[in-house]
Formats: sequence, C-alpha cells, structure tokens
Amino acid sequence: MIPTPPAACPLPSSQELPPATRPHDVLRVRDGIPETVADVLAEEVPVALVYNGISHAVMMATPADLEDFALGFSLTEGLIDHAGECYGIDVEAGPAGVTVQLEVASRAFMALKERRRTLAGRTGCGLCGVDSLDQVYRTLPPGHGRAVLAGSAVRAALAALPARQALNRISGATHAAAWCDMDGTPAVVREDVGRHNALDKVIGALARTPASRAGDGFALVTSRVSVEMVQKAAMAGAVAIVGVSAPTAAAVRMAENAGMVLVAFARGSQFVCYAGQDRLAP
Amino acid sequence: MIPTPPAACPLPSSQELPPATRPHDVLRVRDGIPETVADVLAEEVPVALVYNGISHAVMMATPADLEDFALGFSLTEGLIDHAGECYGIDVEAGPAGVTVQLEVASRAFMALKERRRTLAGRTGCGLCGVDSLDQVYRTLPPGHGRAVLAGSAVRAALAALPARQALNRISGATHAAAWCDMDGTPAVVREDVGRHNALDKVIGALARTPASRAGDGFALVTSRVSVEMVQKAAMAGAVAIVGVSAPTAAAVRMAENAGMVLVAFARGSQFVCYAGQDRLAP
Repeated sequence: MIPTPPAACPLPSSQELPPATRPHDVLRVRDGIPETVADVLAEEVPVALVYNGISHAVMMATPADLEDFALGFSLTEGLIDHAGECYGIDVEAGPAGVTVQLEVASRAFMALKERRRTLAGRTGCGLCGVDSLDQVYRTLPPGHGRAVLAGSAVRAALAALPARQALNRISGATHAAAWCDMDGTPAVVREDVGRHNALDKVIGALARTPASRAGDGFALVTSRVSVEMVQKAAMAGAVAIVGVSAPTAAAVRMAENAGMVLVAFARGSQFVCYAGQDRLAP
Repeated sequence: MIPTPPAACPLPSSQELPPATRPHDVLRVRDGIPETVADVLAEEVPVALVYNGISHAVMMATPADLEDFALGFSLTEGLIDHAGECYGIDVEAGPAGVTVQLEVASRAFMALKERRRTLAGRTGCGLCGVDSLDQVYRTLPPGHGRAVLAGSAVRAALAALPARQALNRISGATHAAAWCDMDGTPAVVREDVGRHNALDKVIGALARTPASRAGDGFALVTSRVSVEMVQKAAMAGAVAIVGVSAPTAAAVRMAENAGMVLVAFARGSQFVCYAGQDRLAP
C-alpha cells in the first residue's frame, strides 16, 4: 500500500466559525434517471476541547452553539460538577478545525489531571476518556422518583419539535435534542450531526440560562436511545428520556437503575415505555 | 448533589458472551391506550480492546462477531497495516463487559506504544485515540480511480440487504453494514447498535476471509455517512460508500479527496450522488 498525501478536509482558511450548512450540487437519480440539483449539506468539523490549556478531546460536531456543547460535555462527562466551575469559554476557528478553550476551577482541573495521570500513556476511545471496563459507568445523581410523565406531554413534545429543527429542515442530516417541561413544551432545542453532541448542547444551554429550566423536565431526542444517552440525561437530572427510535437493552437497565422513565419509538400519537412504567400516565 | 451508588448495568454473571438480544416486556401506548406486550431488545455491552496486554479502547457494541470487530477496528484505525500483523484474537466475557485480547506484531505494538507515549497523560474522545486537531485525518490508501459504480448495483444491494439483517428484524435497533460486489451482491453483512462498529465488523470479516472479497467492491451502510464512515471505507479500499441517510459536508470533501464515489439517501430505486459523479453509471 503506497501512502498518498492525507485526504484531509481542510476548511476554508478563516478565523470565523464555519457555517453550519454548505450548498453542494448533487446528482439525484430516480429509477435510473439522473438530474443535477442544488442541495444543502450539514457541516461537520473537528472540535477540540482544551481545559486550562490542556487538550482533552476532539469530536466531530456541527459548528453551532459550541459554548453550549463545551459546557454540556463538561457536565455530562463529570469533568466539572456544576456550571460555576467553568469560568470562561472561548471558541477559536482555524484551518484544521475549531478549538474551544475552557477555563475551569482548580478543583476540576486537579481532578482532570489526576484522571489523566492514572491513564498516562493510554488513549480512550468510543467512550469518552475510558480505556478499561471499570470506568464505563459513572455515579449518577438521584432519580426523580416521584415525578410522573404524561403521555400527553410526550405527544405535545413530538408535535412541537419539528418546527424547532431549523438545520435539519434544510440539510436533512442533523439530530435534535430538546429539554421539555413536564407539559411537553420544548424549553431548549439544539441540533448537531452527532446525537450525543445535540444532547450535550441542550444540557449546556440549560446550565448557561438556568431560567430556562423551571422545575422538572425530560429529554427528547430524535435518535435511538443508547446507554450513553441515558447517562447524559441522568447527569442532567431528567425525569425521563424519550427517543423517536429504538433503545438498547443496556439503556433500559441503566434507566431502571437511575430511576428514569424511558420511552422510545415515539412517533405521532404512539410510543413505547421500556422503563419506569409505574411513573407513566399514558 | 448527593452521590448514589453507581447506576451500573451489570451483565448476568457468566463467562459466556451475552446474547445479542434480550426479551423485555414493554408498555405500548397508542392514542393514550396502553397495552403490555413482549418485545426484544438489542444488547449493548462495553467491549475493551487490549493489544499485547495493554488496554487501548472501550466501546459500546453488540456482542456478536467481536473477532471481526477487533480486527476491523485495528485495520481502519491504522493500528495494524494488514491482517497478517494480528497473530491471535481472544474474546473473554466478564460481569463488567467483554475483553478482546489481540496479539499483534512487534512492529505494530511498537508503533502503538510510540503513539501512546506521545499522548502520555492525555485521553482521547469521540475520535479514536485523538486529542488534538492535527491527528484527525489519516493517510488514506489510493482511491480506485477507474472503477465505475452502477446505479443498478446500488438498487440491487438495497433490495438484498434487509433479508440479511437478522438482528434488526427482531430488535429494530441495529445498524447494518455490507461489503458489496460491484454488481450489488452483498458479500459480507454485519450488524451492530453502532454504525461504526458494523462497518468495522464487515472490514474485519473481509480481512479474515480474503476469498469473500474478489476484486473491487463498495460499502453499504444503513446510517448517515459521516467523515469517519468515509475514512473507514477508504482504509478498506472501497470504490464507493452508499448510505441510506444523509451525508455531511466533511464526508463529501473526504470522499472527493480520496477518490471515492459517495451516494446517500439511497432508498428503493432512488439515490443521490454527492461525490465522484463522473464514475457513476446511473
């Protein structure tokens, strides 16, 4: 195999954040008949998260709402305990991608360095910063055992979400996540090519504007419900997680253990409850 | 926030690999009317990949075809250059998850250790083993510039795939990836809750049974086409990648640079070509 120059995807050189979507001519083929049409694609860029000057992680993400993303990721991955431990977030665009500089409290930075020290010489993958089986699951906050999820709220949230998916409407390529009040009103909605990122953006946005989160709420995601999605929603104290597609068996076990209601295959006036059925009012 | 015991998802204690699906009673709600029904969920377990005794990565995956997964991941992540550098793969199930022990050539192990040394004290995330922007894109093998993808092959592959998605038929929760001959016959199909994992399993299976890969071929995936999916398919020398859902702008740029045809929104007799339109026979 002869190596060729890297098939890199350099962004147009600019200090500005790249646009979240890009026009692109495509060839649409129907029953063998081709037609050139103008289309719009969702952008996807490498985003490096740097804590007090130390690079911690790089993820592919939609270049929008990156302050929300950085804060939400820091919270749901347990890198900071609360938003007050983040003193500043600075987003810098460059030709290779976007760098988000976070300034965090010394307690959080010491914990991060300790976590790194114990992982010295190793790299994590797939699960954030995890390279052995005993690091997979985090300690979750206590579940909201008494709150009841109304079926009417699930249906209301599903009906309200599409109007808030601006990026998906033009690109057809982005997931959305929402934090919904218990009556099903989406209080905060964010979009990303990555479903985890969309949920992190919502959780970061809630933390940045606490007024948007009055009382209990639940997470609505336009994706499948895997164990990481339940873990992130639980870290944010959600009463429930509702997904439009399937859950996994591990996600259901985690929701049961965390005291969360798990609803999936939620579409139109139908849904399926996989965990916390005693706290669902159909 | 008062910490509670970890909301872990321990698997039933066993030295056997857990089943890929599990039965689970659910509450199905239609127009507010609940009904308890028996359902089947796709399992999702932490899988640790250990190279010559050193743990490198943990991913959530469907516990099936894990030898294929380990070999495919090693190839598409550039940890080994060819299947001959992997001398043995051993899959061990435990209560916390599954450990896959790989024995690799000393050249590959030295390169892995060097890569780890330069990352000492850091953890990667999102992108495998990557923690700074200049590590995002890999050197890709030369593209198959002369091969032409026939629209009839895309349609044939789409028509043939569902009959090969055994896990998805009972769980509705798994992605599939296929390596297709240039006439659209799926030579190898694998499934996983993670789309990247499904593609890695296919590439690993091809490498383990070289006879299954006679001549050129293309990758078909039941998911969106992100930049990592293009990168993995390119590492395997695919002529094209075909996805049933949307591509991202970065994925299209990478396919163009790698000399691959990129087809997406491929459903029934329709598809859209985003890159390599001059090497598509509609």
